[in-house]
This record gives sequence, C-alpha cells and structure tokens, in this order.
Amino acid sequence: MKFVDKLLKIARENDSLVCVGLDTDLDKVPKHLLREDDPIFAFNRSIIDSTSDLVCAYKPNLAFYEVFGSRGWEALKKTCEYIPRQIPIILDGKRGDIGNTARMYARAVFETLGGDAVTVNAYMGKDALLPFLEYEDKCSFVLCLTSNQGAQDFQLSKVEGQPLYEMVARKVVGWNEKGNCGLVVGATYPEQLRSIREMAASLPILIPGVGAQSGDLESTVRFGTDKNGELAIINSSRAILYASSKEDFAEAARSETAKLRDSINRCRKG
Amino acid sequence: MKFVDKLLKIARENDSLVCVGLDTDLDKVPKHLLREDDPIFAFNRSIIDSTSDLVCAYKPNLAFYEVFGSRGWEALKKTCEYIPRQIPIILDGKRGDIGNTARMYARAVFETLGGDAVTVNAYMGKDALLPFLEYEDKCSFVLCLTSNQGAQDFQLSKVEGQPLYEMVARKVVGWNEKGNCGLVVGATYPEQLRSIREMAASLPILIPGVGAQSGDLESTVRFGTDKNGELAIINSSRAILYASSKEDFAEAARSETAKLRDSINRCRKG
Repeated sequence: MKFVDKLLKIARENDSLVCVGLDTDLDKVPKHLLREDDPIFAFNRSIIDSTSDLVCAYKPNLAFYEVFGSRGWEALKKTCEYIPRQIPIILDGKRGDIGNTARMYARAVFETLGGDAVTVNAYMGKDALLPFLEYEDKCSFVLCLTSNQGAQDFQLSKVEGQPLYEMVARKVVGWNEKGNCGLVVGATYPEQLRSIREMAASLPILIPGVGAQSGDLESTVRFGTDKNGELAIINSSRAILYASSKEDFAEAARSETAKLRDSINRCRKG
Repeated sequence: MKFVDKLLKIARENDSLVCVGLDTDLDKVPKHLLREDDPIFAFNRSIIDSTSDLVCAYKPNLAFYEVFGSRGWEALKKTCEYIPRQIPIILDGKRGDIGNTARMYARAVFETLGGDAVTVNAYMGKDALLPFLEYEDKCSFVLCLTSNQGAQDFQLSKVEGQPLYEMVARKVVGWNEKGNCGLVVGATYPEQLRSIREMAASLPILIPGVGAQSGDLESTVRFGTDKNGELAIINSSRAILYASSKEDFAEAARSETAKLRDSINRCRKG
C-alpha cells in the first residue's frame, strides 16, 4: 500500500490529522518510569496505548534515541515494532548524504527500523534523495520551510527570483514521480504554507510547530490541508508527551491529543 | 585542547593530511571476518592498527553503523573508544535540526560517542548549529559544497548574487566566534575550493571525494590547504578500506594510506 493511502485510511478512521512526536526525554518522563528496564520504551508504550485511536501517525525523533547510543536504538526499534501496523511511523532524522551513504540511511530507517516515512534534507540535491525514493511504498518528507528562527538564514533567501524554500518545494514536486514525496513546513509561517500547498496540491505535508513552538492552528489547518481537508500531518510532541509529569501522564497525553484533534477538526469543518 | 590544535599536532607528527573514512560495509569486508563476534569492529580495529601512524583523523560514517541498529551503534562506540586519543574522530552524520533536537544530536556525537568533530547541515540556519558550537573544544564541519552531482540542484544556485555554497561559507566564517567551525568541500570542485579557502583562511576544511569519487589531488591540496599547507583534511574511504578483499586487507589499507599521504605531501611540498 502506498504511504499516502495508508495515511488517508487511518486519518479517516481516527478522524484525525494529529501526529504525536515521540521526542522522549528521560529528564522529562515521570520519575516512577526510571525504575523500568527500558524507561524510554515503557513511556512510549503508554503514550501509544493511550493515543493510538486519536492519531494519524507517530513521529519518533531519532536524536532523542541516539543520545543513549545502542540502548536508545534498541528502545526505538521496540517502539517501532509496538506501534500498531495501520498507523504510519515517520522517522524524523533529517538525513541526507551522497548516494552510497543515503542508501544505508534508507535501509536503516525503512528496513532496520521498519519506518513508513522519513524526514530528509535536500541540501545535497536529488541524487542524495534517490535511494530513499526507490522505496515506492515509503514516503520521504523533504525539509522545505522549518519552524525555527534560523529558517531566515538560507530558506527565506531569494534564489533566482524565488525564496529557496519555494525552489525546494518545486523541485520536490518534480521528483515525486512515484508519488512518495512529502514536505516539511513549519506552522510558524502560515502565508508561506499556503503558497507551498498551492505548488504541492497532492503531497502530504508534515507540519511541526503548533505546540511548544506556537504556530497559529487555524491558518495551519486551512492552508496546510489539501482541497479535501486532508494530507496535512500536524505534529505535536512536548505539549502531549509532558502534559503531566506524574503517574497520570498517559491520560493527560490522551486528553491533550484529543483536544488538539478536536481543535483541528473544528478548523477543518468550520 | 581546541580541535584545530589537536588536528595540527597529529598532522605534523604523522606528516599527514589523510583522513581514513570508516564507511565499514559488511558486504565488502573480507569474508573471514564475518566469523568474528563483532565483524564491523574487528575490521575497524585492524584498519586503525595498520594506519594510525599515517593519518590526521578518522571519519566514521554514521549511516554504515545505523543500518545495523543497536548492534551497529555498539560497534561504532567501540571503534571510537579504540581510536588512539591523539587522533581526532570526525563523526560524519550530516545532522541538523531545531535547537532542542540539535542539543540531543550534539550530546550523542560529542558525549555518548566521544567524537571530536561532527559534520552538520546548515539548511535550518544558525540556531540549528548553536548547540554543536557550544562545545568549544569540538569542531562542527558545515556542509558547504559537496562532491556529488546533486550539488548543482541548490548549492550552485545564485542567492543574492552569490552561489548558495558561498553564502554558507561566509555565514559559517561569521559563526566561528569560538574557533570551532569547519567546512566540508568536495574535491570535485577545485576552483570553488580555492574561493572557499580564500573566504575561510583559518578554518579546517574536510575534503571528501579524492578516491572513489575521483577529484583531482593536486588542485585539492593546493587550493584546500591554508597558507602553511595545513588545515585540509583529505578523506578517502573505499579506496583504502577495500584495497584488498582478502586476509591481507590491513596491509593493503596501510599501503594505500601511505601512497595517498605521500602523493599529498609531494603536492604540498612541490
């Protein structure tokens, strides 16, 4: 099944555009979990159990696992295996390198970890993305316009008359021959999100930055979704994961996820 | 000790600008090693033993370890611990993400793995690099102009009158307040390497692409080194690692490394 079909199916079933970002940080998880053999996995398992009927995707952020070395990768692998098969896993690693190296990164995320999608950085150009795009049923979300301040350093600069992020968006639309490309666009730039959606009508757009980075939700939903009000994947990490630092963290995460889902749906249907 | 001082010290001691790229691929290592408990580490250990008096740095390529998941990270960790302390370890992961995530990546490479340097991608701007730059004695090599065909997609495009890679180089020179930035410039673009070296007179430049990617060695050395014929780190991976696929692989790697070192030194001193 193509990634986009898997995404649409679960998004409709759960009536949700919410992606929960699994940026699991041992300094922030409830203290009682630290007694577990694998506290990262124990935390993720509870979050997944309490939110899996409310989301359209999970997005583990690779940095938060790598920091624990092989133990972190073990927790990440178990997390990927634990996520119900019908829910897409977006591995957020922002990878990108020359062909023979990109091939290894693609194998790592799609085969070793069994992810459905990955985030990639296009600075090195098309041939750095091709090994990812060879996986027809997977999806590669290319960094386009990011939600941080530093987006201004290069992404908003004018390249041959257009901002660099637009050049990236246009090229990615051209590279989408197998229907397996997506874009990453931060919620902090609603006007730009609108123009990117116009350029990339049928691409899934992964949108971080609505929670801790406080983008405007209404314009994010309005401009980020496609003509059917779909294909936007709106990520929240910290606001959901750390809604409570106590034993009720899973219920608190569920309630935050439901709140975000419902707010998004009011914007979609309003 | 600052990274640059550590680099200069060993480069002078070993009279070498050669960096051996540890892109260890189990499909290519000699078959007899596959019987070892940890064939990746066994291979690396032999390569390190046979080349450590001939190099100025080692550069493990993270993709080649990640593809084996936690087992790969274990091999990478052991490799980093095995490399003699006086030789800088450049962890080639081309990382880059928003602040709180970049902080995790920086901890992963500099603390968990104990690397001396890392390669990073600047597409997300300065704030994505700051967490790396907080480590004063480490070095962050920013992707500037890469050796692959795809460099033409964005890096060579004109941004505000200059190629994007030049804009990156200029910004990085400005961000080098703590003297811990470097640049990555492929050997396949000698003319551009010359102009980058002019802009970044005192930065170490990591130069891949002289081996399998066949850049011209003489111009690489001439244009990539600083005014003293130093601060260029010339990487070769496959040509050294897989010089022989038989039991004599370590001696063959030594002889390839010595050959490259001597060829470089002839260009430096010629």
